[in-house]
Amino acid sequence: MDIRLRFGRNVKALRKATGLSQDEFADRASIHRTYMSGIERGKRAPTIIVVEQLALALGVQPGALFADDNSPPDQA
Amino acid sequence: MDIRLRFGRNVKALRKATGLSQDEFADRASIHRTYMSGIERGKRAPTIIVVEQLALALGVQPGALFADDNSPPDQA
Repeated sequence: MDIRLRFGRNVKALRKATGLSQDEFADRASIHRTYMSGIERGKRAPTIIVVEQLALALGVQPGALFADDNSPPDQA
Repeated sequence: MDIRLRFGRNVKALRKATGLSQDEFADRASIHRTYMSGIERGKRAPTIIVVEQLALALGVQPGALFADDNSPPDQA
């Protein structure tokens, strides 16, 4: 799966788990709402700076946003 | 620690473990040598596309490149 899609799906799933709407979460993470929408849809390739902003706002480690159901993030 | 520094140190440590020089590894990962140097020194903020390229060339999961000694990547 395209890394942008995998990343976006993880962000979306974790964001939904917080109970926040996409716009509310974008505001909390200090990310533009349109850009946030593009990230969740796998249309954007954020830099690691944005990856960290998202992880902090979600309360997870940055690596968790790259998790693949078929291979845990801590497995090589 | 700045996410760029943490990321760069992880890439450098994993690249050294492969036994490849920075230039050899840059060529293998299809990343410009100057850009590769900047990544390892924590001067660059690569996109998740580049994160995936690096992880593939290193044979690790993308999340492993964000690992922090003080908090495993699979821990929130």
